[in-house]
Amino acid sequence: MNERRLKELIQQKRYVTLKKELEELNQVDIAELLEELDVHTALLIFRMLSKDLAVEVFAHFSVEHQRNIIAKVTDKELKDIVEELFFDDMIDIIEEMPANIVKKILKHAKEEERSLINQFLKYPPESAGSIMTIEYVDLKKHMTVGDALRHIKRTGLDKETVYTCYVTDKNRKLEGIVSLRKLVISDEDKSIEEIMNKDVIYVTTHDDQETVANVFKRYGFLALPVVDKEERLTGIITVDDIMDVIDQEATEDFQKMAAMAPSEERYLDTSILNLAKHRIVWLLVLMISATFTGRIIRKYEDVLQSIVVLTAFIPMLMDTGGNSGSQSSTLIIRGLALGEIELKDAGRVLWKEFRISTIVGLILAIVNFFRIYLFDTVGPMVALTVSFTLFLTVIIAKVVGSLLPIAAKRLDIDPAIMAGPLITTVVDALSLILYFKIASWILGI
Amino acid sequence: MNERRLKELIQQKRYVTLKKELEELNQVDIAELLEELDVHTALLIFRMLSKDLAVEVFAHFSVEHQRNIIAKVTDKELKDIVEELFFDDMIDIIEEMPANIVKKILKHAKEEERSLINQFLKYPPESAGSIMTIEYVDLKKHMTVGDALRHIKRTGLDKETVYTCYVTDKNRKLEGIVSLRKLVISDEDKSIEEIMNKDVIYVTTHDDQETVANVFKRYGFLALPVVDKEERLTGIITVDDIMDVIDQEATEDFQKMAAMAPSEERYLDTSILNLAKHRIVWLLVLMISATFTGRIIRKYEDVLQSIVVLTAFIPMLMDTGGNSGSQSSTLIIRGLALGEIELKDAGRVLWKEFRISTIVGLILAIVNFFRIYLFDTVGPMVALTVSFTLFLTVIIAKVVGSLLPIAAKRLDIDPAIMAGPLITTVVDALSLILYFKIASWILGI
Repeated sequence: MNERRLKELIQQKRYVTLKKELEELNQVDIAELLEELDVHTALLIFRMLSKDLAVEVFAHFSVEHQRNIIAKVTDKELKDIVEELFFDDMIDIIEEMPANIVKKILKHAKEEERSLINQFLKYPPESAGSIMTIEYVDLKKHMTVGDALRHIKRTGLDKETVYTCYVTDKNRKLEGIVSLRKLVISDEDKSIEEIMNKDVIYVTTHDDQETVANVFKRYGFLALPVVDKEERLTGIITVDDIMDVIDQEATEDFQKMAAMAPSEERYLDTSILNLAKHRIVWLLVLMISATFTGRIIRKYEDVLQSIVVLTAFIPMLMDTGGNSGSQSSTLIIRGLALGEIELKDAGRVLWKEFRISTIVGLILAIVNFFRIYLFDTVGPMVALTVSFTLFLTVIIAKVVGSLLPIAAKRLDIDPAIMAGPLITTVVDALSLILYFKIASWILGI
Repeated sequence: MNERRLKELIQQKRYVTLKKELEELNQVDIAELLEELDVHTALLIFRMLSKDLAVEVFAHFSVEHQRNIIAKVTDKELKDIVEELFFDDMIDIIEEMPANIVKKILKHAKEEERSLINQFLKYPPESAGSIMTIEYVDLKKHMTVGDALRHIKRTGLDKETVYTCYVTDKNRKLEGIVSLRKLVISDEDKSIEEIMNKDVIYVTTHDDQETVANVFKRYGFLALPVVDKEERLTGIITVDDIMDVIDQEATEDFQKMAAMAPSEERYLDTSILNLAKHRIVWLLVLMISATFTGRIIRKYEDVLQSIVVLTAFIPMLMDTGGNSGSQSSTLIIRGLALGEIELKDAGRVLWKEFRISTIVGLILAIVNFFRIYLFDTVGPMVALTVSFTLFLTVIIAKVVGSLLPIAAKRLDIDPAIMAGPLITTVVDALSLILYFKIASWILGI
């Protein structure tokens, strides 16, 4: 089934065939197909789907499409959707909807659910609490394996996952976990207490989602329990939701490292004013910081005026410095984000970067010397001035580029800010001062 | 149990307590703890672990530590490890080990396993084939649910996952999948054929791992079947291995975007020569490309000589151009990588960037005009020249920055190469030409 086939069947009003073929697809694909139709037709098809499938498809619609559908369905239909949605999907939707629709949704939630929704909406954005869900399998340790399997058989359809089950005491305190694999391969009359894993790894509601993602990556879990301050189980996070978090965290870093305020919205869905707003602040800050480089040049105007050819190499020096610094800062920022580099490695990193920059700087300086001496027909002393400055610039750039992200981390600032653009601005100024000092010294101006 | 406690127990030779406390930990944590010990002691503790746990711990050791352990264990022990390892872990290890150790490992593999290993080693790096494993649950459609559950109970411990089971015909062709959840909630006497999902989403052995990761992200699966050209099931990929792929692909993009050859090795584990090698090529290429900017400046030497203050603004113009271009190219490269932007969106992207750059460029130009007019005490005409150039530079930078990644994608080149450093070099040259043309025109030089 593809878009053409769907539209063909709609046109021919062959709805029975359409329903049959559609229901063979994965809900993600159905959602995507329906989004290509106008709201009226989409709703028509949406209503044909079985109730369970319809809810799953709904959860995969884009925010805009969800809004359109909610605006058009009856109160009864909305009630059905709200009741069947997984709790984390409902929270996501509530967070994105305008007030009148939220009111409509809350009207259909049960009393206790409503207070739960309010509690969830209060978790800080990007915290474990804000991405967890409450549909988990809850077991007691005195149950037998057979009891547990029957419990899952009865309630499993409505759970986000049944593959990890949680054992709690009467105060909801987490006592252990047991996997469905373990249940299936164990004897029916063993007790849960005998087979459960007591060394449970968990996160707390206020942990950052990046921390949560790192726990998933480290252990390869399919789900992770979330507990509150009193160590009571309040929800779980499943691995499929974490994959989005991993992408989102990387995207945020990409954006910060390119001097933008991070945004979760997809590029094509973001308005140009919003995109402009996310970009202008850093551009302004960096532009104004460039005042320093301008001042330095003006201070040494006489040097430039006496040997005007020196100006020609300023862009090359600054770009190479910027690129060298970006390389180092990028590796360090990424290493910090993935936990491969820690604060205690600062010394090792610096020493490493110093040696690398000496090698790289030397090669660049030698190639550059012959390049400008032979092809740009400058004198050997000018070529030497430029190349020596280049060598030192590369070293400074790499040391600054590796130092700033680590220093930021130390001060609890996001290291991703200390990337290419900022490093370039700092290195520009240092490199220019060096250039003029070295020129005065070698060329005797 | 932490490192201190471990070393304390070792010193006091309280091995029974040590074994008991160790076995309560997750295998990932045990592996990390053992890596902190010297090889001799690590091996001593490693040998205390139960066989199953030992193998799991071994799979989580770093390559270096695996090598040390293999070098020291007896042939019998190595045989046990090799036999118990999951196939994908074994392939990973074989790929990283020196020839003499590989020979030692292969000696202990069974005949049919050896030919399978050879087949796996031939899959292209970063392909689905190279990351899949062969330990999946294989069901037949005529089985009942009860049969299937008993089959899992018997063989489940040795499978990478039991949560998705694969239904194949006698020629190993994939006919359907069924989840353990479905098995557990279905009646024991139903046939697998009745409950299996026939619309199976799969990848092929030669698909790129990035494609595989995108399928996981789209559908939220826990495992994905891998078929060969004849559509026979050859392996499965589980979600825990895909999380590494997602990180790895993002890291590669970070590295390429900062003008480095990508590397999978951890920063701290990479030698400085290797790091230098990954950085020098692009630095050289970009440095030599800067020849153009140098030439442009030398061509307009007379303009600079007559109004030397113009030189002072070259760094600011070039940095702002570079930053503006990086912002656009970063968003587009990331959007392309996540599949949020496609080739067909080229027109929309360009139009969007053109409008954004007009807004951003205008703000920057106005702020800059007053900044240099009031604080840098230049004449209004010079301020106008600089600001007008800045405005046009931002537009050019953003258009080039969004165009090049899309063009690269179109030509099947990795868009990540068209990032900050390259964009900066291109924009530098264009911006300088503009600067001198506008200066000649406004200032009448």
